[in-house]
Amino acid sequence: MKYDTKFDNESLLVAESVLTTANGYLGVRGNFEEGYGEGLESIRGTYLNGFYDIVDVTYGENAYGFPQTAQKMLNVIDGQTIRISVGGDVFSMDSGKILSMKRSLNLEAGYAARSIHWQSPKNHEIIIDIRRMTSFKTKELLMIDYNVRSIGYNGPLTIESTIDGNVRNYTRAGDPRVASGHGQLLEITSAFTDIQTGILTAKTTRSGLEMACMMLHDIPMQLFIEDNTITATRTLQLDDNDECHFTKYVVYTDSLRHDHIIDSGLDIIGMVADKGRVYWYNRQQHYLDDFWKYAKVDIEGDDSVQEAIDFSCYQLLACAGKEPYSNMAAKGLTGEGYEGHYFWDTEIYAIPFFTLTEPEVAKNLLTFRHRTLDQARIRAVELGHKKGAKIPWRTISGSECSGYFPAACAQYHINADVAYANIQYYLFHKDLDFMMTISYPVIFETARLWMDTGHYGPDGMFRIDDVTGPDEYTAIVNNNYYTNAMAKYHLMWAVKLATVLEEYDMDGWNRLCDELDISTNELYSMKQAAEAMYLPYDQAHGISLMDDSFMLKKDWDFDGTPKDHHPLLLYYHPLAIYRHKVLKQADTVLAHFLLDNEKGSVMKRSYDYYERYTTHDSSLSYCIYGMMASKVGYPEKALHYFNKNIRLDLDNLHHNTKDGLHLANAGGVYMNLVYGFMGLRIKEDGLYLAPTKPTCWNSLTIRFRYKGTLLTLSIANDIVIESQEPVTLYLYGTSYNVKDRPLHVPVATKTIS
Amino acid sequence: MKYDTKFDNESLLVAESVLTTANGYLGVRGNFEEGYGEGLESIRGTYLNGFYDIVDVTYGENAYGFPQTAQKMLNVIDGQTIRISVGGDVFSMDSGKILSMKRSLNLEAGYAARSIHWQSPKNHEIIIDIRRMTSFKTKELLMIDYNVRSIGYNGPLTIESTIDGNVRNYTRAGDPRVASGHGQLLEITSAFTDIQTGILTAKTTRSGLEMACMMLHDIPMQLFIEDNTITATRTLQLDDNDECHFTKYVVYTDSLRHDHIIDSGLDIIGMVADKGRVYWYNRQQHYLDDFWKYAKVDIEGDDSVQEAIDFSCYQLLACAGKEPYSNMAAKGLTGEGYEGHYFWDTEIYAIPFFTLTEPEVAKNLLTFRHRTLDQARIRAVELGHKKGAKIPWRTISGSECSGYFPAACAQYHINADVAYANIQYYLFHKDLDFMMTISYPVIFETARLWMDTGHYGPDGMFRIDDVTGPDEYTAIVNNNYYTNAMAKYHLMWAVKLATVLEEYDMDGWNRLCDELDISTNELYSMKQAAEAMYLPYDQAHGISLMDDSFMLKKDWDFDGTPKDHHPLLLYYHPLAIYRHKVLKQADTVLAHFLLDNEKGSVMKRSYDYYERYTTHDSSLSYCIYGMMASKVGYPEKALHYFNKNIRLDLDNLHHNTKDGLHLANAGGVYMNLVYGFMGLRIKEDGLYLAPTKPTCWNSLTIRFRYKGTLLTLSIANDIVIESQEPVTLYLYGTSYNVKDRPLHVPVATKTIS
Repeated sequence: MKYDTKFDNESLLVAESVLTTANGYLGVRGNFEEGYGEGLESIRGTYLNGFYDIVDVTYGENAYGFPQTAQKMLNVIDGQTIRISVGGDVFSMDSGKILSMKRSLNLEAGYAARSIHWQSPKNHEIIIDIRRMTSFKTKELLMIDYNVRSIGYNGPLTIESTIDGNVRNYTRAGDPRVASGHGQLLEITSAFTDIQTGILTAKTTRSGLEMACMMLHDIPMQLFIEDNTITATRTLQLDDNDECHFTKYVVYTDSLRHDHIIDSGLDIIGMVADKGRVYWYNRQQHYLDDFWKYAKVDIEGDDSVQEAIDFSCYQLLACAGKEPYSNMAAKGLTGEGYEGHYFWDTEIYAIPFFTLTEPEVAKNLLTFRHRTLDQARIRAVELGHKKGAKIPWRTISGSECSGYFPAACAQYHINADVAYANIQYYLFHKDLDFMMTISYPVIFETARLWMDTGHYGPDGMFRIDDVTGPDEYTAIVNNNYYTNAMAKYHLMWAVKLATVLEEYDMDGWNRLCDELDISTNELYSMKQAAEAMYLPYDQAHGISLMDDSFMLKKDWDFDGTPKDHHPLLLYYHPLAIYRHKVLKQADTVLAHFLLDNEKGSVMKRSYDYYERYTTHDSSLSYCIYGMMASKVGYPEKALHYFNKNIRLDLDNLHHNTKDGLHLANAGGVYMNLVYGFMGLRIKEDGLYLAPTKPTCWNSLTIRFRYKGTLLTLSIANDIVIESQEPVTLYLYGTSYNVKDRPLHVPVATKTIS
Repeated sequence: MKYDTKFDNESLLVAESVLTTANGYLGVRGNFEEGYGEGLESIRGTYLNGFYDIVDVTYGENAYGFPQTAQKMLNVIDGQTIRISVGGDVFSMDSGKILSMKRSLNLEAGYAARSIHWQSPKNHEIIIDIRRMTSFKTKELLMIDYNVRSIGYNGPLTIESTIDGNVRNYTRAGDPRVASGHGQLLEITSAFTDIQTGILTAKTTRSGLEMACMMLHDIPMQLFIEDNTITATRTLQLDDNDECHFTKYVVYTDSLRHDHIIDSGLDIIGMVADKGRVYWYNRQQHYLDDFWKYAKVDIEGDDSVQEAIDFSCYQLLACAGKEPYSNMAAKGLTGEGYEGHYFWDTEIYAIPFFTLTEPEVAKNLLTFRHRTLDQARIRAVELGHKKGAKIPWRTISGSECSGYFPAACAQYHINADVAYANIQYYLFHKDLDFMMTISYPVIFETARLWMDTGHYGPDGMFRIDDVTGPDEYTAIVNNNYYTNAMAKYHLMWAVKLATVLEEYDMDGWNRLCDELDISTNELYSMKQAAEAMYLPYDQAHGISLMDDSFMLKKDWDFDGTPKDHHPLLLYYHPLAIYRHKVLKQADTVLAHFLLDNEKGSVMKRSYDYYERYTTHDSSLSYCIYGMMASKVGYPEKALHYFNKNIRLDLDNLHHNTKDGLHLANAGGVYMNLVYGFMGLRIKEDGLYLAPTKPTCWNSLTIRFRYKGTLLTLSIANDIVIESQEPVTLYLYGTSYNVKDRPLHVPVATKTIS
């Protein structure tokens, strides 16, 4: 994917996020190795998934149960810095003359590249080709590869390559989506060399975590240590029309994953250097070949869209944790927005992608909530519940990090969201061992909270008061439709899966019941609550009602709102927003998408109603409206909303891509294709498909895994379904068996004009 | 009033608050002049009403319109320190032997006294009599008076008296009602002497305010300056059975009130010393004679209650600002709880006392909101309103200081509370000039906010969504009955007073209309909204309904709540509290008290209903339930609730009197007598009385001002009403004219058994 930008500060900052190289553990922003010129701001960042420090949370007025500390993803030791010079002129983008520059992110081979044709101030001409890669195969590895070709220059080429411990986190005052304090958190504990390897170790100020960063080059270098920095230098002879090449290997270890950060790091970097760069490029290619085999979505007829889809899928892979200590941050490993916290974005916007394409990654993300279940149990007690678990709204290590509970901790729906992702995974893969050991404990403990949070009202209906739904422009309401509907689904499945697990493995089930103190009575009371769950409905409009009071609120003055006053949260006090009919994002419509639980006419009318009050100030919104547009029969809108966000980060549509990529939106892009245009739904009785295709595309092809097999689904003039193994599915409501050869079915609904 | 305490730390800290000497400008906590022994904590404090610094407010997550700074009342230069020694032994409470100690607050003469019979470590015996007074007549003056009598001792008496600039504010972590940071805020700018006067000046770090503190003694002293402290020393000869006497004059000036803090201070301290201590004691006595003439409530038959009533009235006088820069803080000038902020406590709990007893003080307190109206206008804009004014929930200089909006800024009712106090003042005194210049601009600007905050619902009723009522255990609700009922009253009076003012002074009214851009249309729309105001009513229970959702919430588990888990706010997360039926304090019942706006049966049923859900975790609650008990016919409960809080501070019932007195409760004590037992109400057509008297008292007598005359009202076997001028009033609903001689009427309702 080519990615050439203008040479202004904003474009460069955005490029840093877009051209991040990451592998789920290690993320390195696409900064220029040599640094930037005077007056150019850069967010120079390297992040290790789940590696955090602890910072204080302070409040204007404190109250019981407010988190007193939070975790914060650290910007760790910088390993990407390399400076070269020819004839005494140090290469930088603002000295001499840039004759040409090309940048790209190779999504098939998994590296970022930059090629610069440079004329130095002394008029020496060189072409510099740089590649950088974080290895999917050896997660600790960052590899940077320089090839310098002379055009008529004969003379020395000096290389200076560093690992630098003088790092800070990025801060910016006044924007609640970026941290405003806590810049300096990492302290260098040692700096030394071991033959040709330079090693820095560091520790955090409060979390007790340690890390090491080490570098080694494929050519002999001289190493110096100074001021928390290790510098390797070398001068080569560069001849006219000849080229010089060198590779820098940087390895990151940390005390979460490595018992001995130094020894492990040295072992890895030695092994890495032994194999050499070609080996690592090949391994990267193989890894990605496997990935794309199941993840590739093909569109014929729109290269710009194709590029954006590929980019979205790639970044999801690059940012999702693949071992127990990692989840996926809202901005992945691409920036410091939201301080590296994990949100419900993972379960509702990212896991659907992995469930279909890389189930092992999905399992790892799901396992994170199981690993941190004890902290969620403690949080439930802090919130006044006698038992159960409350998933934190934002976290890294498992404890709640949100400092504004009305739009965070009050979003109890996250409990159901986590359960939902587990249930969906179960429906696609029927992995009952995983359900028994990981999913069910999470599903059951989180379900318990509904029984205490909710209660039976005077009418015998089960109500849930004083929670916040997904829409953050409405807070602390009663009977949020989304929350109640998701809780109903959650409770119902907690009960249903008990039977499934009992039948599957009676002993295992009994052990689980002992461990979690599950009784038949408790399961029965959950069943009753699910059945009695109150789902607000507005008779006059024939729609699912967002909450008890939404319909009675004052209309937001959309006409009187200046265009530049979005997102509203940056221009209006929460109270001014809360008391009006205005939505930040899909709420009731999201429930309809996830649960498919109402009559088509109700969903369609609800869509129409809420659409006009929705600002889409959240990046989690367009994709939902896009998918539901397909569902309720608005093909033009489906395409409209899809196009709205497909290039959100590539084109910096929200003006904050510099703080990191919108990973949930990336997931939303994929979901739009699969759940939107292809109309995929998984239900208890199987797979449902209802494809539609925008006419502006010649064809749309998706691939995904279903119960261990690869399904390929194409829509062009016909619909073509292929499966490795025999599979039964519902197409436009009709059951089909797909066996040895592709199934051809005509497109049933009219395509988008 | 005698006030002897145990000699443990908690008792001494409480005594510091109780024995504060204050005059509305200057407050000095009742610390021991000589300091405390090892291991004893003391909150040594001197405060100037309205003298503040600015501190940052930080948030876990910031949002638009959150106050970024707050004001904080400063602990200013200490002027109360005096140490004496005999025979080389420095007097302190933990050295030698205390043969006796008596402490008292003289409520008639206006000073605090301490008398100690002390045997020094070397067995010298002396009796020390100390009086301290902050002058009501010359607000800048603190006077401390020592009389030392020898019992068999012949030798030197050494005096060391200081003014000390090494002061900090008190901080305590973890309690939202006390500041946890910002200790050191005052910086000494100069220290010098002028003949016998020692002078310290200081400035705040950010508010730009300056102050001076100076001392002068009535005997010649030697002065030294060291380390931001000025010390005056003198050694006298003390003969057996003889006594030595000296007086310390301390004068405080500040740049809010004094153009030249040093020159003004020197003028004042010179004048003060010229007149001498006897003069100032006399002036204090005269001032208080005048005060008690209108404020004294007499109870025959319960000395403990009598003492508590006198104390309450005295402290209200002592803590209320009497010039334009001052209001009355929640803790007055007696401690640092709530950081010296002014709340609605002033309007709803304190001004009623002054309206009846000291109208000039009431006018001053009402004027504060007028003086700060521009800041309230700015705040309204910040909250998204196009015009009008939003009274800050807590403030010193006029801008919002609350850091937790759901239980603060969201309490829009404060707009109506401020208007209510102005309207009540008008009804008692009919001061139309004050109404035109001060009250109406406040009433009208604050009324404007209802028109924007509220709106007409589908049923044509005027609704107010997403506000918090007085009860802070329920937040951000729709149609809080209290808010809507108060807004209705507020809007109705905004309209009614327009006519009154127009008739009174057409030119003045027209000028006001120009100034505030008042139109007939706007007044008409206010009238319409008032008439269409939705007042929630629960048909099933026949009660006024606290808000749209209260009746549907889950019951709080009172039985399962440990006794030591009060106030709940210190033991439960806000969400755990909000979603339950549980009240911190009177809410709907408060509206019924203030407005007397529903049928007796509705108010009675509402009382019964809400009483069982009310924890009275706020000190603003018992008094309301006490008064409404009299109203709805529960005389036993009226006495019960009255007794609950009458000695709140004297007996430290809330365990936090050390942080300052509960001034709103002091107001509540007085209101219980006048509005509760005497059943006073003021309405458009006059004064209503419905006395009841607990049988445990022989008689109850109150005095108050009404339209310029003194009314005395006694209830014993009969009711006796006296008035200086002819007056018409309603007694038990019947109209009476009181003329030259006392009116005798039999008690109509049965007294409390």
